[in-house]
Amino acid sequence: MSKGLPKRSENYSEWYNEIVKRADLAENSAVRGCMVIKPYGYAIWEKMQRALDDMFKASGHVNAYFPLFVPKSFLEKEEEHAEGFAKECAVITHYRLKANPDGKGLVVDPNAKLEEELIVRPTSETVIWNTYKGWIQSWRDLPILINQWANVVRWEMRTRIFLRTAEFLWQEGHTAHATKQEAIEETNKILEIYAEFAEKWMSMPVIQGVKTASERFAGAEDTLCIEALMQDGKALQSGTSHFLGQNFAKSFDVKFTNKEGQLEYAWATSWGVSTRLMGALIMAHSDDNGLVLPPKLAPIQVVIVPIYKGEEDLAKITEAVNPVFEALKAKGISVKYDDDDKQRSGWKFAEYELKGVPVRLGLGMRDLENGTVEVARRDTLTKESKPLAGIADYVESLLDEIQENIYDKALKFREENTFTVDTWDDFKAQVEKGGFILAHWDGTAETEEAIKNETKATIRCIPFNSAEEAGKCVYSGKDSAKRVVFAKAY
Amino acid sequence: MSKGLPKRSENYSEWYNEIVKRADLAENSAVRGCMVIKPYGYAIWEKMQRALDDMFKASGHVNAYFPLFVPKSFLEKEEEHAEGFAKECAVITHYRLKANPDGKGLVVDPNAKLEEELIVRPTSETVIWNTYKGWIQSWRDLPILINQWANVVRWEMRTRIFLRTAEFLWQEGHTAHATKQEAIEETNKILEIYAEFAEKWMSMPVIQGVKTASERFAGAEDTLCIEALMQDGKALQSGTSHFLGQNFAKSFDVKFTNKEGQLEYAWATSWGVSTRLMGALIMAHSDDNGLVLPPKLAPIQVVIVPIYKGEEDLAKITEAVNPVFEALKAKGISVKYDDDDKQRSGWKFAEYELKGVPVRLGLGMRDLENGTVEVARRDTLTKESKPLAGIADYVESLLDEIQENIYDKALKFREENTFTVDTWDDFKAQVEKGGFILAHWDGTAETEEAIKNETKATIRCIPFNSAEEAGKCVYSGKDSAKRVVFAKAY
Repeated sequence: MSKGLPKRSENYSEWYNEIVKRADLAENSAVRGCMVIKPYGYAIWEKMQRALDDMFKASGHVNAYFPLFVPKSFLEKEEEHAEGFAKECAVITHYRLKANPDGKGLVVDPNAKLEEELIVRPTSETVIWNTYKGWIQSWRDLPILINQWANVVRWEMRTRIFLRTAEFLWQEGHTAHATKQEAIEETNKILEIYAEFAEKWMSMPVIQGVKTASERFAGAEDTLCIEALMQDGKALQSGTSHFLGQNFAKSFDVKFTNKEGQLEYAWATSWGVSTRLMGALIMAHSDDNGLVLPPKLAPIQVVIVPIYKGEEDLAKITEAVNPVFEALKAKGISVKYDDDDKQRSGWKFAEYELKGVPVRLGLGMRDLENGTVEVARRDTLTKESKPLAGIADYVESLLDEIQENIYDKALKFREENTFTVDTWDDFKAQVEKGGFILAHWDGTAETEEAIKNETKATIRCIPFNSAEEAGKCVYSGKDSAKRVVFAKAY
Repeated sequence: MSKGLPKRSENYSEWYNEIVKRADLAENSAVRGCMVIKPYGYAIWEKMQRALDDMFKASGHVNAYFPLFVPKSFLEKEEEHAEGFAKECAVITHYRLKANPDGKGLVVDPNAKLEEELIVRPTSETVIWNTYKGWIQSWRDLPILINQWANVVRWEMRTRIFLRTAEFLWQEGHTAHATKQEAIEETNKILEIYAEFAEKWMSMPVIQGVKTASERFAGAEDTLCIEALMQDGKALQSGTSHFLGQNFAKSFDVKFTNKEGQLEYAWATSWGVSTRLMGALIMAHSDDNGLVLPPKLAPIQVVIVPIYKGEEDLAKITEAVNPVFEALKAKGISVKYDDDDKQRSGWKFAEYELKGVPVRLGLGMRDLENGTVEVARRDTLTKESKPLAGIADYVESLLDEIQENIYDKALKFREENTFTVDTWDDFKAQVEKGGFILAHWDGTAETEEAIKNETKATIRCIPFNSAEEAGKCVYSGKDSAKRVVFAKAY
């Protein structure tokens, strides 16, 4: 076991930071709030990207690329949007440096001031809808179903690696439709893709629902979201899909001739998930020994470690490992044979545990004699001896089992940490303890705000899959038709 | 044929711009010098990315991600590097906007001035070597073989879509090594990967060589490059691989303990190709009918167009097309069946020609009767009737043939437009006519500069694969040991 990894139960926050660091996922850079995503972390992100990209393409979306910079005047055009993002903008004012006339180094060249400031995109609705204006004339030009993989910048005051960084990587979908209905369907379809990705790939159960007005994306008519529960009992918003109505079409004057020959504003959606999912993945599954990765997102799915003394033994083990290695590769399984002589096998075991490699195969001389191999599972930390013959088939099904088990474990955790609460005292007490709280809410922004101020709990969403159930607001005692999900959140 | 596409022979520059526009590759955005890469163009870039990424990974490289922003003080650390990039930097000075107190809209909040200005990365050597300082202590930490896919910004005064834009997409490799020899080998290995990609994927022959001192990357000891010849006789630098010596290690104090236990500065390389390759691809192969794409980079490799009157005919054709479509797909060929009823087949033919789809299959009622299909090649603009039976196999080998033919054609063009010149008068006359010029040069920066000033031709590279041949400098008449490659360039 890795020395001194803090325990989740003792210091969750330090435990998270140390896993990010020791599993070589990422680190803070010299630039305030910006992170360096290290190769091992980036390999996980690449797997996420590939899976999501395949799903977007399978559902008819295409990729494109739009400028990094947003003219200030664009940001101003949609009022709520401007208000939402103005406070956290990186602003470019000049386009040249020059040698410092008073001494060493470089200074901003005052003669190279931009006529209009540019903002580093915090999101691309404005730039994209300004572009769509040129692309949309007729209903025949619709729908436009575009996604972009990009970096964005939001100048956050308190940053946290992966979870809240000034620069982050994400995908942002921006679609344009001829009808309101079609745009709403798109918003829903994307949320389902996000939920499927979270559950099937990340092994992370999520609640699907709609945000309250106060938690909506700046400029949206409706924001749908997936919400996951972390092991410390806090919620993490893991993806959002926005129905933008005609807001951006109106701000950028994007009209089309509909089938009836009339001019109409186009209907819009936008949606995104980001490197924040890396934080969710870490916090949802990992344990006091380090990272736990669902096999579908693990850069190394299987590691084979020889246990030997001397080169002769190693050669024999390697000979036995070779066909297993090839058989696993032939199945499309990402496998590493670690015969590095510089580290002992015990050190390797701890290292791969720390890095969350789902399956470890250990092979020593006694295994060779017996025709066996030691199979260690990262998710359960259990070991068993298995016949070497047919081990590739066994490992293949074991990876599926692990993928499911990690999901089941997270689901069980969520179920055990979801509480139905009916009184204000119980509510306050439960917020302190953590978890998802299902409680009645009177539907007003005032109550939502008061609850937030008094407990720091927010309404994560109004869930889709919950029964209508008349009740009284946990705070105001007024009528409520349905429970909503409260939690403290990242 | 597309109406009014300008002819290469009449207005090459307009021809280029119109192809970019009409083939839906990209367009200029509202942000000065920044482009929008449209879905069809981006799909080509994605194919380039995938092929290069596979080659990088196969040669032991891994991806990572580093911050978008470079603190001004970092840029200052390597003197030549600073000088090279200071003049074209997008500079962030503030991190917040606020409501305009004097009226409408947003203004920069003067209270949100950064203590130190940030530059939007024009390239990432400084940020990365500042990070490597924390990663490199011992020879055991080396080599580091990292690549990054990213956007970069260089504030160019004269921009040209794909070829020279303020923001562009690229990959930048940054490696660190324990020995000079290993770093030099890495520099060479990457150049070979670039050349292989250009020739095998882009069907574009390139000359490999080394830049003269004046054309070197700012901060490099040596810059290797691949140079391609465009159809207007101008050269296009298509990729560069830099041996950086210990310059950045010294600027950022990156030392390691070598095997002998001594402290030493690490050795570095960096290398990149960018969306500029899109411009090269267009200009190398396209013709007066539009884009010509090598099959390996074509988003749609084969289009099938039914030629019919009425739904009944279409149903019959579709029935015959289905197995062909499935057979092509099963071979991993990207195929589209265009049964869109809103456009006539003639319009479709022109459209797919414009977009460079390598193979078009046309199927009418007479073909059905005869068991034939019309096969049209984009590269030669020829058509032939072929038996429908076994057509998938035929198309598969035809795609390979087209890939090669496009290369052969470009190679022939280059050979016909490469000139060995020995006198100054011939040199000046040939520069006017275009092409690669092989001429003797005395090796001095003064002569290089004078030739550039008088003719606008630059030394594209000192080629690797040319024989030593004593001669006299075409400009100064002084001794020269080898011919170098001159051309006007993009």
